[in-house]
Amino acid sequence: MAAPPPTEELPIREGEKKASTEQEINPWDVQAGQDEQGNTLQFDYVAISQKWATKLIDEDLLGRFERLTGKKPHRWLRRGLFFSHRDFDKILDRYEAGEPFFLYTGRGPSSDALHLGHTIPFTFTKWLQDVFDVPLVIMLTDDEKALFKDGLSFEDTHKFGLQNAKDIIACGFDMKKTFIYSDLEYVSGHFLYNVWEFSKLLPFNQVRGAFGFDGSTNIGRIMFPAVQCAASFATSYPEIWPNYDPKADRSKAIAKIPCLIPMAIDQDPYFRLVRDNSHRMRFPSPKPALIHSKFLTALQGAGGKMSASDPNSAIFMTDTPNQIKNKINKHAFSGGRETLEEHQRLGGIPEVDVAFQYLSYFEDDDAKLLEIENSYRKGTLMTGELKKMAIAMLQEYVKEFQERRKQVTDEVMRGYMTPRELVWKGNPNPVRKEKEKEKKGKGEKGEKGKDAGKIEEKTGEAKS
Amino acid sequence: MAAPPPTEELPIREGEKKASTEQEINPWDVQAGQDEQGNTLQFDYVAISQKWATKLIDEDLLGRFERLTGKKPHRWLRRGLFFSHRDFDKILDRYEAGEPFFLYTGRGPSSDALHLGHTIPFTFTKWLQDVFDVPLVIMLTDDEKALFKDGLSFEDTHKFGLQNAKDIIACGFDMKKTFIYSDLEYVSGHFLYNVWEFSKLLPFNQVRGAFGFDGSTNIGRIMFPAVQCAASFATSYPEIWPNYDPKADRSKAIAKIPCLIPMAIDQDPYFRLVRDNSHRMRFPSPKPALIHSKFLTALQGAGGKMSASDPNSAIFMTDTPNQIKNKINKHAFSGGRETLEEHQRLGGIPEVDVAFQYLSYFEDDDAKLLEIENSYRKGTLMTGELKKMAIAMLQEYVKEFQERRKQVTDEVMRGYMTPRELVWKGNPNPVRKEKEKEKKGKGEKGEKGKDAGKIEEKTGEAKS
Repeated sequence: MAAPPPTEELPIREGEKKASTEQEINPWDVQAGQDEQGNTLQFDYVAISQKWATKLIDEDLLGRFERLTGKKPHRWLRRGLFFSHRDFDKILDRYEAGEPFFLYTGRGPSSDALHLGHTIPFTFTKWLQDVFDVPLVIMLTDDEKALFKDGLSFEDTHKFGLQNAKDIIACGFDMKKTFIYSDLEYVSGHFLYNVWEFSKLLPFNQVRGAFGFDGSTNIGRIMFPAVQCAASFATSYPEIWPNYDPKADRSKAIAKIPCLIPMAIDQDPYFRLVRDNSHRMRFPSPKPALIHSKFLTALQGAGGKMSASDPNSAIFMTDTPNQIKNKINKHAFSGGRETLEEHQRLGGIPEVDVAFQYLSYFEDDDAKLLEIENSYRKGTLMTGELKKMAIAMLQEYVKEFQERRKQVTDEVMRGYMTPRELVWKGNPNPVRKEKEKEKKGKGEKGEKGKDAGKIEEKTGEAKS
Repeated sequence: MAAPPPTEELPIREGEKKASTEQEINPWDVQAGQDEQGNTLQFDYVAISQKWATKLIDEDLLGRFERLTGKKPHRWLRRGLFFSHRDFDKILDRYEAGEPFFLYTGRGPSSDALHLGHTIPFTFTKWLQDVFDVPLVIMLTDDEKALFKDGLSFEDTHKFGLQNAKDIIACGFDMKKTFIYSDLEYVSGHFLYNVWEFSKLLPFNQVRGAFGFDGSTNIGRIMFPAVQCAASFATSYPEIWPNYDPKADRSKAIAKIPCLIPMAIDQDPYFRLVRDNSHRMRFPSPKPALIHSKFLTALQGAGGKMSASDPNSAIFMTDTPNQIKNKINKHAFSGGRETLEEHQRLGGIPEVDVAFQYLSYFEDDDAKLLEIENSYRKGTLMTGELKKMAIAMLQEYVKEFQERRKQVTDEVMRGYMTPRELVWKGNPNPVRKEKEKEKKGKGEKGEKGKDAGKIEEKTGEAKS
């Protein structure tokens, strides 16, 4: 699964003409439209939602979410960073009825460290996990990244994946409810069976159109969509569900557990394939529900790309407070005016101001943010002041991340990455509970290795 | 891996015109040429060898084989059933130098019982194993068969594969040196890593040409060649080789162990892909050596197909002596003449006589076979007498098979199918030997499960 591509967006400024080339959005190629002068335009998310027939997330849906969960929708929902969905309402139906579902997201490990933009979907997923109290699987597509990048070997991407796993864990996921896996390590057995079964349902023509493949595409790339798709079936994770038995009717029941996939909108074509075909599997599965994000703003704004090879293109999660300060001050595209006089007269443009965008990712207080926006637009708030606020919030976010990251040893990482039964309030495993009671009664300790109980004990220790 | 397709061959009769449509040979489609009257012609094996630039097996090669191994070449080599090769001479070089290699063959499990034609390549492979004393891997391509047959599910082909494994074992393989696996069970880990790595080297155009794929081909089929190809790398079987460690230089040495693949000529395109690309792997491997068989003669001769759904089209390995007798007498295409007078005057045609063909598969005495052939051609040997001899040899072959087959319990099958270190004279595992000595010294018995020692103990018990 590719991370949300760090492609910047730039709103249409006053007086600009309409796009003369259309935007292009698919999992391998994301390009904003251009006007007749070749200027990059803002992505038109309403247009892509209409084109792909997704539903926009509206006040009604968020209202229902709040009534059911008792939680205020995350600011990234309120502010439309996650803006579109498929069947999120059905997930709420299940939540209301107390029926199980799980979360599935992923990352394509193309470099060894996450930058700010990479962490946002994971931070959002962690929030969903907390709100819903459901199991979560996180797929590291080390297979995909090596297949799609000529310069990267499978050894490289596998290594990146393990490093990325540590960063992902540092986003705060609850180990008891979270299984992180490297495709190169985990895809086998039931999972691979599902991959093959699903691949039989996909003629080349169907994936060619969705992903822009041609005769020079290597056959691994052509196959890969079946891997990313099969990851959305509950039966691909037999260890998660207690007493999974593919020969018993129970497996059919497990196949019916749907997933909710938070993801960038460009990944939608994968899961349309699943939604079109999941009922045709040996154990038919419901359509997965999707929740789509916009693309994240790069440091340079227009024309810039967040890139691991350019340290000044993004805030890295390894940056020091001083590095963050310098990057924002020197490199963050500003929506302020050329001179103080001009700024006061015309006002700033928050829509293109990267510091304001970043602030809007992290300032949870809607009223306060609106006040900042208005002051900036009116020209009473200067760029320097705005940047200072953004720097402070980013430093705080990165610092908290780094504190959690320090705790993530190889052992902790392997805990999250061990295939095992997950435990959550909505579906505790009675067998496990019995066993744990027995253990406690006898005062025994678990053995080292793949024992799930042991790993959870460890987590407990790390937290206490 | 598809079994040698049971397509019949019919020689050109006197006075017949030359082919007006050319023969077609590839892994998914094997059709003999036709003359202008639409009559099926004999396969032209010399032509396919020339077209694909393989080498014909000649007297020099067989002479060298006999000098090196001290064994007379198998009658199927002497009589050209295995007629062509790639680098078999290099395998002989290795044998001479005492350097390791392994055997690899396979079966596509499309039905639950083997017929006579299916067993012949395995019987030949068993002979190669005995002569060379090398490890052997046998791949059951249950994944492939479900991908390629609309009516077959992965459950079906997996089940067929396990049944086929028992029949294959009954061909007499030595358990200590033989690992049989179902793709759906075994392909994962190092093997799957090789599959992905190899798939990256194969653009769609290359497999499209080799296998006749198009836009309607499912993506699993497109991927499958990488699985069959990766099976020829020693590193796909880490359990076989003692102390395999992909991080150590040792793995590079293991990657350099080549395989010899006995197979029907139609499978050659797969392994040309390997021969063209194996040096490009992370751990470069030598080109696999190949030894090609012709296609086997069906019971009905011209126009007939050996088919599991038509009990009269083939001798099944479950047939009773009486069924064999009736099938040969009633259904085996005869090269004899219409009347006794005509037969005595014109003589029979051994080339199209199915009973003679079958006799030639099993009568090891060249002089005796030549005498039979000459008598039949002269018309002094009658069809009935010829059939009687063929029936006796087939009954004997099938009976011996059935006796071995009775010994193949689920437990024995699982023994062969357990990934484990293999043991052979040329490369005994010193670590294992030490362990065995220790065990014997302590009088301990192995535990149940995946312990290789245990399984070999079991074999030993079964044989004694």
